[in-house]
Amino acid sequence: MTTGKGAATRLRIVEAAAAEIRERGANATTLDDVGRRSGTGKGQMFHYFPQGREELLLAVAVHEADRVFEGQQPYLDELTSRAAWEAWRDLIVEQYRDQGLYCPLGVLISDVGRYSPASQAVAAQLVRRWQECVRAGIEATQAAGEADPELDADRTAAAVIGAIQGGVTVLLSTGSTEHLEAGLNLCLDRLLL
Amino acid sequence: MTTGKGAATRLRIVEAAAAEIRERGANATTLDDVGRRSGTGKGQMFHYFPQGREELLLAVAVHEADRVFEGQQPYLDELTSRAAWEAWRDLIVEQYRDQGLYCPLGVLISDVGRYSPASQAVAAQLVRRWQECVRAGIEATQAAGEADPELDADRTAAAVIGAIQGGVTVLLSTGSTEHLEAGLNLCLDRLLL
Repeated sequence: MTTGKGAATRLRIVEAAAAEIRERGANATTLDDVGRRSGTGKGQMFHYFPQGREELLLAVAVHEADRVFEGQQPYLDELTSRAAWEAWRDLIVEQYRDQGLYCPLGVLISDVGRYSPASQAVAAQLVRRWQECVRAGIEATQAAGEADPELDADRTAAAVIGAIQGGVTVLLSTGSTEHLEAGLNLCLDRLLL
Repeated sequence: MTTGKGAATRLRIVEAAAAEIRERGANATTLDDVGRRSGTGKGQMFHYFPQGREELLLAVAVHEADRVFEGQQPYLDELTSRAAWEAWRDLIVEQYRDQGLYCPLGVLISDVGRYSPASQAVAAQLVRRWQECVRAGIEATQAAGEADPELDADRTAAAVIGAIQGGVTVLLSTGSTEHLEAGLNLCLDRLLL
């Protein structure tokens, strides 16, 4: 159990690490930097993250994913009509274009180490959680008679998540939102009646 | 102009760098490692790559992309029927699942630096080249009467490239090909008659 004060300290460390990573990249971020920025000593850092740097990076990924999910509300929880899906699509394109290119999964992939079992477990959990939201939206839209009832909701949700990840990957590498928009549009075109 | 012998030396350096990066990641690969592995000295390395490490990493990305394109032949150049598209899809899923998780764009994104103009230019060129192949396939399949003639071939090709990139991104982070398969299947389902 972490006390209220302990939880606040842990959060301060995670937020400091997230800010360092956004500014300088995970590779350039050391525990010393995070300690300095959060005003915590090595002892405290290892109290909250006994396994050190990788454990902290995983906590940052979960924390940043929460911000991404929150940033997609209320749209993400109300995907029940064509209008709602299109508003969500527009929000995603705008967010990734204007609010920076930071992606929590990117940290897990390129910085924690793609072959780490802990990293894969956290990434799978984040993807699964996001996909569940989209799947629920597909089922609600099918129930409302506005989406193709023949489609498997979970597999279609997986395709939508993949389209976003792929669009963001291309955006990160080329600077263009073309693939993000094309991928989401094709998914919505197939899904909606 | 590079002589035949010069081109061979340059290629030896690029292949040594590519092998190091596949084994240890770009971040852990130094010019010294590449020199040792390729049997070339610092002077030669800077003769072929006067701008140093970033220039070499860009050359590696282009070289590795060639391998990816070649690995998708003859399917990639003959996308004219449902059978051909499905064979290409199966090949891609199998390649990324079984032959390792290495992706040239990944090097550009996470290791050369996402904000480097040189990196973005090379990435955009690789994406554009791949997308052109897929677009030509969509147009050929439309001409053969086996694909929806209403679809914009270039935007649909962008969605297909995005689906692959996204599927590979999720595969890299979770170890599962679920999103790669779901994304490609949704694209083919929308495209083919």
